[in-house]
Amino acid sequence: MQNNLSDTVQLTIDLIQRDSVTPVDKGCQIMLAERLANSGFNAEYLRFGEVDNLWCRRGHNGPLFVFAGHTDVVPTGPVDKWSYEPFAAKIEDGILYGRGTADMKGSIAAMVTACERFVAEHPQHAGSIAFLLTSDEEGPATDGTVKVIETLQARQDHIDWCVVGEPTSTDKVADVVKNGRRGSLNGYLTVQGKQGHIAYPHLADNPVHKLAPALAELCAMQWDQGNADFPPTSFQVSNLNSGTGATNIIPGTAELIFNFRYSTEVTHDELQQQVEAILDKHGVAYQLDWVLSGKPFRTAGGKLLEAVQVAVKTVTGYETTLSTSGGTSDGRFIAPTGAQVIELGPLNATIHQIDEHVSVADLDTLSSIYQQLLTELLVN
Amino acid sequence: MQNNLSDTVQLTIDLIQRDSVTPVDKGCQIMLAERLANSGFNAEYLRFGEVDNLWCRRGHNGPLFVFAGHTDVVPTGPVDKWSYEPFAAKIEDGILYGRGTADMKGSIAAMVTACERFVAEHPQHAGSIAFLLTSDEEGPATDGTVKVIETLQARQDHIDWCVVGEPTSTDKVADVVKNGRRGSLNGYLTVQGKQGHIAYPHLADNPVHKLAPALAELCAMQWDQGNADFPPTSFQVSNLNSGTGATNIIPGTAELIFNFRYSTEVTHDELQQQVEAILDKHGVAYQLDWVLSGKPFRTAGGKLLEAVQVAVKTVTGYETTLSTSGGTSDGRFIAPTGAQVIELGPLNATIHQIDEHVSVADLDTLSSIYQQLLTELLVN
Repeated sequence: MQNNLSDTVQLTIDLIQRDSVTPVDKGCQIMLAERLANSGFNAEYLRFGEVDNLWCRRGHNGPLFVFAGHTDVVPTGPVDKWSYEPFAAKIEDGILYGRGTADMKGSIAAMVTACERFVAEHPQHAGSIAFLLTSDEEGPATDGTVKVIETLQARQDHIDWCVVGEPTSTDKVADVVKNGRRGSLNGYLTVQGKQGHIAYPHLADNPVHKLAPALAELCAMQWDQGNADFPPTSFQVSNLNSGTGATNIIPGTAELIFNFRYSTEVTHDELQQQVEAILDKHGVAYQLDWVLSGKPFRTAGGKLLEAVQVAVKTVTGYETTLSTSGGTSDGRFIAPTGAQVIELGPLNATIHQIDEHVSVADLDTLSSIYQQLLTELLVN
Repeated sequence: MQNNLSDTVQLTIDLIQRDSVTPVDKGCQIMLAERLANSGFNAEYLRFGEVDNLWCRRGHNGPLFVFAGHTDVVPTGPVDKWSYEPFAAKIEDGILYGRGTADMKGSIAAMVTACERFVAEHPQHAGSIAFLLTSDEEGPATDGTVKVIETLQARQDHIDWCVVGEPTSTDKVADVVKNGRRGSLNGYLTVQGKQGHIAYPHLADNPVHKLAPALAELCAMQWDQGNADFPPTSFQVSNLNSGTGATNIIPGTAELIFNFRYSTEVTHDELQQQVEAILDKHGVAYQLDWVLSGKPFRTAGGKLLEAVQVAVKTVTGYETTLSTSGGTSDGRFIAPTGAQVIELGPLNATIHQIDEHVSVADLDTLSSIYQQLLTELLVN
């Protein structure tokens, strides 16, 4: 036990000590729902496949404000490389160490305590507040937020404003708010060649040689210039494998996996057509499967964006910066419903790493910002 | 037991039934040496590491004629896919099936019986005849022929003429004689990049993207035009691997293995310089290790080449074709001593494959050609 801890920090610790590695929730959602029930929230447990999801709402009227997040965490990696046991939630010099402290149990705790204080102060607030939590954000993300959103849409529950608690901050808490994300598109390419002995290349067809000029063109391509809201579209190869291991065999196939992070200046259809045109131009024989992880989305303006900027300034004294860079989040499933979506959470420097940690002071600041945001949007 | 078999076919069967997968000899060499002793050959067993080698010579004078070969065979692959048990040496419709029938126990048997008949007919032949056999031709080839040659050179034993029994024939036995081989040079390239998250490419350095334009240039390059004796130099990638398996990670390195089969129009030094110049031009950060498997060699003329052409014509009635194409052989270790080296053996269509086989009639023809060759060179 550690004494003199704020409610937010203590709740973060309680969450960290449940080792809820994707897709396991380890009772986090029930604990949170039971606690929120004391503030007038009603829980719905939405389990899909092996994934626990929670929809927990206070109020029946619009507008509907949602805190979204995930109770699952990524694996620890080698535990013996951690300075502190990753699920012990140890505080040292004002820093809380543990898997999920920054991504994103600290945010969830800050959201819950923000609601507790806000509801105590404004029991007759306007609109509704809800939590959308999943245990499958770090995994395939097929039985999580996307399924909850389908459920809500089927019954005409419309989200007006959504704050995702992903760790967006760079140098100090809330210095960066994400108001959109690039699209993400994966390509799985198999180049067909013909295997043979390396001494008889005329009897074989080397798939690496067929791919090489097309790959050079793909890597050199400028896909767009980006725009005011998005950086230029980026093409990156993640995996390239060909060969039997033997040094005297021309391989029969080459396997390439690549990813686009793309702006609103192009569509995934256009990117697919351009890639296929380049492969065709170079006479590559191939099979190409596409997986669209998420279209780009952006919250360009509106009340939520104004309110979060005011809330950050009010609580911290400094201005926040809007950004659409970085990886995907479950915001990609919520924004297409027409909701205004922003992401705001603690510093992301240590996420997914050994010795993931967060400043306990930052957690309290974050909770105050979330509370101020509710005040901006749901009072008078 | 199969009856009415020629000495050559029976000896081939005896050799096949010893499952001498590299580097194991399984007593083949002792059996051959004891048999050759009856024809006046003296055996020297030269074991290096785990490799058995045999040097077995008849006579003390020059010129020295050598039959070279290997008693080891490549693995069978899945035995249940063979029509006949691979070490049973089964004959069906005049075809002898088994691992090593074509590569190259059939040749060795034909050489031994050729010597037996030749010595019986010409006990006072000119010069000397020797066998140079190894059990490590199909393996690393470091403790085999190359070490025997070092031993011979250290004591000034000079080989004048050498016939390697590799399976050179294409459509009918002895239709092709190899009078040289291309050089073989392997490159092991590691491209250095910087690993990172695929959403933040500016913080990483994708080694596949660095390699791509250089690889395209290497694949498109014409290294030479070849010449009358050699086909053009060939560059082939055998293995290319990069990536962690994850689709959201930019890999830290890319590993490329490639091979040159090269003519006498270039040297391995020149090829290495050209590859490194291309990599440097494209700003690739790399480590590149080179392994020279064998320089090109050629027996352009001389008594051996004349004699083999006459011998083939005399026995078969048709002309043989000279070639320097195809893979490497232990001839690469013998030719640098100044010996005239040619390769002549049975059809190579099934070597290293399931159901490797050879025509029993071809084995007898081959033995007659070898005998005729001895007659051309060592009588009067």
